[in-house]
Amino acid sequence: MHFSPSVTLLAGGVGGAKLAQGLAGALQRPEDLTVVVNTGDDDVIYGLDVSPDLDTVMYTLAGLANPETGWGVADDTFTTLDAMAALGEDTWFRIGDRDLATNVLRTARRRSGATLSEVTAELCRGLGVRPRLLPMTDQRVATVVTTPDGRLDFQEYFVARRHADRVLGVSYDGVSESRPAPGVLETLGEADVVVLAPSNPYLSIGPILAVPGVREALAATTARKTAVSPIVGGRALKGPAAAILEAMGHEVSALGVARMWAGVVDELVLDVADAALAPAVEEVGLSVVVTRTVMSGAEDRVRLARELLER
Amino acid sequence: MHFSPSVTLLAGGVGGAKLAQGLAGALQRPEDLTVVVNTGDDDVIYGLDVSPDLDTVMYTLAGLANPETGWGVADDTFTTLDAMAALGEDTWFRIGDRDLATNVLRTARRRSGATLSEVTAELCRGLGVRPRLLPMTDQRVATVVTTPDGRLDFQEYFVARRHADRVLGVSYDGVSESRPAPGVLETLGEADVVVLAPSNPYLSIGPILAVPGVREALAATTARKTAVSPIVGGRALKGPAAAILEAMGHEVSALGVARMWAGVVDELVLDVADAALAPAVEEVGLSVVVTRTVMSGAEDRVRLARELLER
Repeated sequence: MHFSPSVTLLAGGVGGAKLAQGLAGALQRPEDLTVVVNTGDDDVIYGLDVSPDLDTVMYTLAGLANPETGWGVADDTFTTLDAMAALGEDTWFRIGDRDLATNVLRTARRRSGATLSEVTAELCRGLGVRPRLLPMTDQRVATVVTTPDGRLDFQEYFVARRHADRVLGVSYDGVSESRPAPGVLETLGEADVVVLAPSNPYLSIGPILAVPGVREALAATTARKTAVSPIVGGRALKGPAAAILEAMGHEVSALGVARMWAGVVDELVLDVADAALAPAVEEVGLSVVVTRTVMSGAEDRVRLARELLER
Repeated sequence: MHFSPSVTLLAGGVGGAKLAQGLAGALQRPEDLTVVVNTGDDDVIYGLDVSPDLDTVMYTLAGLANPETGWGVADDTFTTLDAMAALGEDTWFRIGDRDLATNVLRTARRRSGATLSEVTAELCRGLGVRPRLLPMTDQRVATVVTTPDGRLDFQEYFVARRHADRVLGVSYDGVSESRPAPGVLETLGEADVVVLAPSNPYLSIGPILAVPGVREALAATTARKTAVSPIVGGRALKGPAAAILEAMGHEVSALGVARMWAGVVDELVLDVADAALAPAVEEVGLSVVVTRTVMSGAEDRVRLARELLER
């Protein structure tokens, strides 16, 4: 690499975490990466303040993530949760014993008045995570999914009901009163490259863009802005992105994604499987990069990251 | 036993828990035992609502207690606490993984608006505890220990500083605004026998008696009222009771205890080691029972309980 850019990644959970790890590995100094993470999935579960996307990104960057589940810590045990089940609690939301340490400390700090940003920084220090993680906001924003059965809290929709409900709409409760967390607007302004991770456009990237000021900062930045399509070959790599795009009236393809991000970013990264869509994507006003975007292993992540940066 | 009395035990931690277990074993129906437990040691630690005395009594009655520590669950693991330590937290207050389930659920329920009484009943049901456990109050009362270094929160005095400080005074912050938990005054009124456990008079029994209405209910009840001396042979069986009695100007002996409980109970149970004190105890107006009061094993606990009841 001829220069070491500063990079800002907007990310949800697993897809964002993988690309964050790739970028951290591709940069000469991992500190030059800032990840702005969706907090619309945050909730209070078992009385604990959980931040699933922040933790997935943090654990992945710390090398602790469980690759099989997409959440939690690898090789974790479930002693506390099993004991809670024995006490009669419905333990539908799985938190392992090590993962619990993160959630107990976060809850403790917030009860003592710390912001989510402050706690996140403390946790990252504790785990030796070198990139900077920022929650999109320190206020409570709740992604709510409207289904034929009514409005569902995100974790109920996603975990308890395994995102099987038809989605009629998605809203971000509280977002209009929220403010970007400290550093979010600055990092968008100062970055050389801004990347939208291959995360769910409605459930992961959408909440971040909905925080007042974020779209404007993105519009104003001189950074090169690129997005990686979470739809490959007409299917979502993971989770309900395809069904939600369809439900919301979008074409379930990288072209559908391109139409959503036109005007938000300059460039869309397509998987080789979608190379044929390149002309149509260019027609909606986006530059196109075609490469392998499916990140199976750590090397894949760094390779993709290098391709995003080395231009 | 010729009749099955209903028994109310006022208890702190370990000594109270042992006698509670003895009474539960001695009664034909364990449900005839109600234990009113000190909550002056309750605190918020790692953001969790801890109730150490309630848990010690509950775990002991459930057969789960750790006999070596006097707190927590036997054979517990410390995965979460170790992970919290790795994150930089000072884990001076030890909570094992199973014990954590109790504390997480209690905190969750209380955050959702449940009272401590309600949570305690739920936890006891979950653990199959048949006697009824009542916190002394559902309001927050904090035992504070004044030392030459100033006022110390109870857990700081007791756990962090290992009750090594000289005690200048003990206060129960918030107690005058507290109310007895539901059932406390009723159980005192309806009991056949009320027992003061061999718990610390200032740190365990004192807070219970300080809850407005409790002393009056104890004075008004027709129950036989008996106390087991926590001082045997001039020494405390456990913890700082001797040092505190001395600091507060009491004689450190079963006679000193007798002077404190004269007017509160009718009878003091002395250990055989203190048989010589019987005349002096009778002189302060209490009947005397002399027996072995040191409860080493489960059989000992039931034997002592039988001797308390079979008269």
